[in-house]
Amino acid sequence: MALRALRLSVVVVAVVALSALPRRADAAPGIRPGHKEADVIVALPGQPPAVQLRQYSGYINVNRAAGKSLFYYFVEAPIDPAHKPLVLWLNGGPGCSSFGIGAFQEVGPFRVDTEGRTLCPNPFSWTAAANLLFLESPVGVGFSYAVNEEVYKTMGDNMTAIDSHIFLLRWFDRFPEYKGREFFIVGESYAGHYIPELAITIDVQNKNPKLTPINLKGISIGNGILEFAEEQAELYEYLWHRAFISDAAHDTIAKHCKGPDDLSTVCQAARDTAYGNTGDISAFNVYAPTCHDKKVRPTDSKCMDIAGPCLAHFVEAYLNQHQVQTAIHANTALKYPWVGCRTRTYNLKRFGDSPTSMLPHLKALVTTGIRIWLFSGDFDAMVPVTATKRSVEKLQLGVEKDWRAWSPGPGKDVAGYVIAYKGLVLATVRGAGHMVTVDQPERGFALLTSFLRGEPLPSAAPQTD
Amino acid sequence: MALRALRLSVVVVAVVALSALPRRADAAPGIRPGHKEADVIVALPGQPPAVQLRQYSGYINVNRAAGKSLFYYFVEAPIDPAHKPLVLWLNGGPGCSSFGIGAFQEVGPFRVDTEGRTLCPNPFSWTAAANLLFLESPVGVGFSYAVNEEVYKTMGDNMTAIDSHIFLLRWFDRFPEYKGREFFIVGESYAGHYIPELAITIDVQNKNPKLTPINLKGISIGNGILEFAEEQAELYEYLWHRAFISDAAHDTIAKHCKGPDDLSTVCQAARDTAYGNTGDISAFNVYAPTCHDKKVRPTDSKCMDIAGPCLAHFVEAYLNQHQVQTAIHANTALKYPWVGCRTRTYNLKRFGDSPTSMLPHLKALVTTGIRIWLFSGDFDAMVPVTATKRSVEKLQLGVEKDWRAWSPGPGKDVAGYVIAYKGLVLATVRGAGHMVTVDQPERGFALLTSFLRGEPLPSAAPQTD
Repeated sequence: MALRALRLSVVVVAVVALSALPRRADAAPGIRPGHKEADVIVALPGQPPAVQLRQYSGYINVNRAAGKSLFYYFVEAPIDPAHKPLVLWLNGGPGCSSFGIGAFQEVGPFRVDTEGRTLCPNPFSWTAAANLLFLESPVGVGFSYAVNEEVYKTMGDNMTAIDSHIFLLRWFDRFPEYKGREFFIVGESYAGHYIPELAITIDVQNKNPKLTPINLKGISIGNGILEFAEEQAELYEYLWHRAFISDAAHDTIAKHCKGPDDLSTVCQAARDTAYGNTGDISAFNVYAPTCHDKKVRPTDSKCMDIAGPCLAHFVEAYLNQHQVQTAIHANTALKYPWVGCRTRTYNLKRFGDSPTSMLPHLKALVTTGIRIWLFSGDFDAMVPVTATKRSVEKLQLGVEKDWRAWSPGPGKDVAGYVIAYKGLVLATVRGAGHMVTVDQPERGFALLTSFLRGEPLPSAAPQTD
Repeated sequence: MALRALRLSVVVVAVVALSALPRRADAAPGIRPGHKEADVIVALPGQPPAVQLRQYSGYINVNRAAGKSLFYYFVEAPIDPAHKPLVLWLNGGPGCSSFGIGAFQEVGPFRVDTEGRTLCPNPFSWTAAANLLFLESPVGVGFSYAVNEEVYKTMGDNMTAIDSHIFLLRWFDRFPEYKGREFFIVGESYAGHYIPELAITIDVQNKNPKLTPINLKGISIGNGILEFAEEQAELYEYLWHRAFISDAAHDTIAKHCKGPDDLSTVCQAARDTAYGNTGDISAFNVYAPTCHDKKVRPTDSKCMDIAGPCLAHFVEAYLNQHQVQTAIHANTALKYPWVGCRTRTYNLKRFGDSPTSMLPHLKALVTTGIRIWLFSGDFDAMVPVTATKRSVEKLQLGVEKDWRAWSPGPGKDVAGYVIAYKGLVLATVRGAGHMVTVDQPERGFALLTSFLRGEPLPSAAPQTD
């Protein structure tokens, strides 16, 4: 997904062709639908035979009248899951799948090999530190669906937060041993909206005596959309400072654009021309190799190169196999293929209640005392680290521990920089794009473990000669 | 070599401990010293047995009174050398070796493996396009030496240009079949001084009817030092825009430094603090992995990973073997080991005639009509692409073909951006540091071939999506 796709997604409104068929009942005899036993994944097709994991997936209905069913994938930590926290992972978009992107390209236990059929172990799987829950949200994303298509006309941040909260309550009913477990929400990009909104919803609803409280300890957001207009404007500054666009193009934008939220034709044309001249790079990682061959092919990787530039296409091939969809209890009667992001049809224009700034939400969350960590892959032009820094500074939280280099551990390279404000930590990840854990899985995992423990990131070795 | 080393090199004056012993006479019977047959390298120790290359190395005396002997390494193109141009490669420093860095880490036919003894083929060797001459210059660098140590007190750009010119005249006498051959000079860093100065010397001396003219067709400089003070100041801007130093550090520098050439204690302290806080990264490639283990070790690479972060140390081990020094006819009686860069003792302070700006030289060269290409690896903070761009703009040459993306060929990623001014081409290399061909050898080779042919760089595919 390149820049143009995301920008267009703000203005294009199209109809999502969703089927309204109920899920097939394929639970084994004696296993009651709606109970976790029915959601057990015996094994994912192509999964390494030696791997022993407790995995579950299926649907939770969040609105019976509209038939809104949210698809989840849950994988327990292989070692000592009872003493590890529960982490909900959310991808952004809006319209991107936490299952096919978050689990299979970022932090889950497996990657898909080049033929789109075999799963390879992810050496930096976050299951080493947590029990991981991936939610395809909002309804309409990935395998999630609604029977009543009218609901797609009322999409927005607000509905997403409410549905996600109901999902969680019902998920805890299905997995009662996780009730009261330390709970964290982590995600990226437009999850910069979803996560603070869901966290506030949880905080408010936890005061409802009729509901079992959710033990929310913290949130962490990577390359989060906090002030979209500012981030879009900063994109061209980011490209210019790296000599991707010319001084002339930069001057033209400055001349024709009156501020970050200028969506005039002349300003957009200047921006489009500048970006068009960058050639076939991705604004989500301006230094990443490009995927030149999207076709799956007989594997020769033997799981060596599990995060290549075409991984998203292998995942799409994998998840569209009937046997995979059956194994994960997905609705196989949906009238459209599974796709990683439904950005062309499922977009900000439909999100009428998408706030222009998430800073008030963050400010409010700081007062609740939950742990708040933001991180930023510094190769991302779409949500540039410079824009994130500026947004955070606007919060005026006061510095608790000043800027310093961090590293995953002794003998490891500088992984980025970190500054601790009062109530909020901001860390950069050196050499990572929009999807930090794709490009820098070891650094991403180190971030997670420090975040979950509430400990400062390990310091990097000092500068030597 | 990190930032501090180079900055210190400007102010530290120390004595280079050079021996004054004459070269051992080890030519085979019947081969006259001072003739190219005496300089033939039968084979470099550890060189792959299948490789057939005509290689020469040895000394050319440029000043008999002072016993100034410059060491060179020359390797012919394996295919059709008679119809390929001659390229002189020069490294910078001042004090860095074109032989051990240029040939063995950048563009020569071999890389050194992890045990410091085996040579691996360089798949992007520039010998595919040219006959390559590497000169260890000025005298005192690498294996080059002077009998009379007094000459080290008069070092400078001027002496370097004169000695290099005399070297070339005498080298052509030793290799007369190259007289009149299309000749190009390519190099990087402080060669941003050496190359324009040598080119001007050649241009002037070519008018001397007593000398055989040198057929200089063009020069190309990568991450060249053109205006050192500006580049040093821009370093901190570069780091700040990439979120390597904090806003606070950036503000402190702005407060305490009055312009780029402010060398006051308070300004330098502010800069040192900012850079010190970046952790153990290299200003020459701020995204490169760090070398954590400088020791050579039994090879297990089988020539797979021939450009790792510790390559410089393997080269140093290789070139300090007695059998290697004997094979290349080096002076084995020098009282100090071979090192890649003699920057601590051999530095700008000794270069009394180092101009603060090379722009007048470039302007003068444009009028001679020779081909001038500058290129810039965009991961280099030491000579940042933004500084190079600004310096070139000061030349006010007028744009001939505007900014565009380039690529080594169809189906290849964007390699960088290029703008053609009247008489000068400026190209960036995406994802390369100070030593472009170390990080992006394929892109570096594509640059060379277009430069030698005098053809525009191939265009990259347009932006998709």
